[in-house]
Amino acid sequence: MTNKPHLTFDLNIPGVSTGYLVVPEGTDHETLSLPVFYCNKGEGPRLLITGGCHGNELEGPIVARRLVDWLPKAQTCGKVIILPELNPLAVRAWTRNTPADGLDLNRVFPGRVEGSVTERIADAVSRVLVPSVETIFDLHSFGPDWEFPPASITHPVADADLMAKTLQMTEAFKLPVTLLWERDDTPGMFDTFAHSQGKVFVCAEFGGGTVGAVSLSIYEAGVRNALIALGLVEGKAEFPSFRHQKSGQTLETLSSDFLISPVPGIFEPRCAALDIVKKGDLLGILHSMDTLSADPQIIYAPAGSTVCAIRSGAHVEANERLVYLSRPLKL
Amino acid sequence: MTNKPHLTFDLNIPGVSTGYLVVPEGTDHETLSLPVFYCNKGEGPRLLITGGCHGNELEGPIVARRLVDWLPKAQTCGKVIILPELNPLAVRAWTRNTPADGLDLNRVFPGRVEGSVTERIADAVSRVLVPSVETIFDLHSFGPDWEFPPASITHPVADADLMAKTLQMTEAFKLPVTLLWERDDTPGMFDTFAHSQGKVFVCAEFGGGTVGAVSLSIYEAGVRNALIALGLVEGKAEFPSFRHQKSGQTLETLSSDFLISPVPGIFEPRCAALDIVKKGDLLGILHSMDTLSADPQIIYAPAGSTVCAIRSGAHVEANERLVYLSRPLKL
Repeated sequence: MTNKPHLTFDLNIPGVSTGYLVVPEGTDHETLSLPVFYCNKGEGPRLLITGGCHGNELEGPIVARRLVDWLPKAQTCGKVIILPELNPLAVRAWTRNTPADGLDLNRVFPGRVEGSVTERIADAVSRVLVPSVETIFDLHSFGPDWEFPPASITHPVADADLMAKTLQMTEAFKLPVTLLWERDDTPGMFDTFAHSQGKVFVCAEFGGGTVGAVSLSIYEAGVRNALIALGLVEGKAEFPSFRHQKSGQTLETLSSDFLISPVPGIFEPRCAALDIVKKGDLLGILHSMDTLSADPQIIYAPAGSTVCAIRSGAHVEANERLVYLSRPLKL
Repeated sequence: MTNKPHLTFDLNIPGVSTGYLVVPEGTDHETLSLPVFYCNKGEGPRLLITGGCHGNELEGPIVARRLVDWLPKAQTCGKVIILPELNPLAVRAWTRNTPADGLDLNRVFPGRVEGSVTERIADAVSRVLVPSVETIFDLHSFGPDWEFPPASITHPVADADLMAKTLQMTEAFKLPVTLLWERDDTPGMFDTFAHSQGKVFVCAEFGGGTVGAVSLSIYEAGVRNALIALGLVEGKAEFPSFRHQKSGQTLETLSSDFLISPVPGIFEPRCAALDIVKKGDLLGILHSMDTLSADPQIIYAPAGSTVCAIRSGAHVEANERLVYLSRPLKL
């Protein structure tokens, strides 16, 4: 045995392999063995699919499990590595961050071999899996407290060629929304690291509370569309049905495109994801918890836009993000 | 000041009052002042509406806030007390139970004046508010990890007259589902206490993760229908639109009508709330977290039934409830 992160099987073996990505023990946690599926059909695209980076976003792990079922028959060429649960500690706890060290796995890439358990997971993925592929699909969702449409997401990439290839791959999911999301907190994201290594990296996202049978089918259809676009499986890519439509739009969210809670209170959403709003339209209401005689705070749209994501009704502190706005992407 | 639970205003004053239900301090928590709204239009039905019993079920508090806005103009007679957040400590923490003492407010009724803070809240409600009304609507939901249709719920009541009146009131919400739910864990429930006092007690329930604008409108329409049926406000009661239909059904769930996880794993829902299933139909799949080479556990329908509630996809331990089944109520 080695004390370095490693796979328990050889990526050169043809056909299907199942085994583990071993994350070495540290002072804070014993050795982790993350189940990995691998389907090697020879020459062709090399793809890594990961889920369960955040433990309260379960669409990804479940869709990844479904792929494990049908990919061995459907895949016609290339190599696909599937790691359904990047962070089993967070999945078991149904928390975004790892309970053991409190870290967000998607903020510690490329990780540290001598770091805490979350950093060691990132290190194992960065070191053992990422170099073996050209393309990565990281299956996320917006978690239980946001409404968000089925979407594939990428972030701006400085390299123009990689940006173009990545945006094309993102649109290939043919989900209701393709989103170019400019974020101000990207250091340590899996995305940022993968892009720095020249990889095409796309996040699937999905929001809306319950992880149910209908939403899982839409999500799976998006991933299947992307596999078809890569040439890994045969078939015809088509938009899944969402709100009785089969169509998609490409939107852009800038790093300033969110609205925050001016005071603490109970947030009442008054619009839904993908609503098109005009300047001054009512988006939500913030009710005081302390009194029923004060006027509530009204959240208005600052400009014409498409609602991209909206917080679920709940108590919020001051300065929490409530709404993300967006507009059609102009290239 | 008194050290007993009390209201800060007089229920004999006509018109609108806002104030507080004061829950005395104890060794574990300081005095709590729960905001209360009251609209007294003289003779007529006397109703208590409560929300926020569980802190991660926010539909109720938000719909209660909406009522505070329009009830003063709409109410034509009678007396309505609204307490939007029964348990502000749990609402602020977005938890079912009270963080301070770990108790479920809906399992400690009628409470204890010398008990911990959750028991003191129950005591204040039981002692100060319940005796003033004949009817109680407690606005719940299924919380973020279940899919459940918009429903009004009651539990079996031994007194046949009270049962008939309660079921009639429950159906008056005209929500997609009216549910008579036989539970095996009713001691300490607000319902059980209220029924023991001869009150008509109905729970509104709602499931499906995100608390959004569309679901809030359905929920509010149900409460408005019930207010119309009581004669407190004028108007025409009609079924709200749900899944493009305007209709309702009355279902029954027995205390044995649930399916549990045989082993720990990731639960994948394969059906949706209100699906009609036959014996042997696939309801869900349980995937091992430890390996990708084991066969998953399949959850089948044990008999023909209507799916009443289904867990959101997530990691579950062994023996957790995954699905509630139901069938049309036969009286």
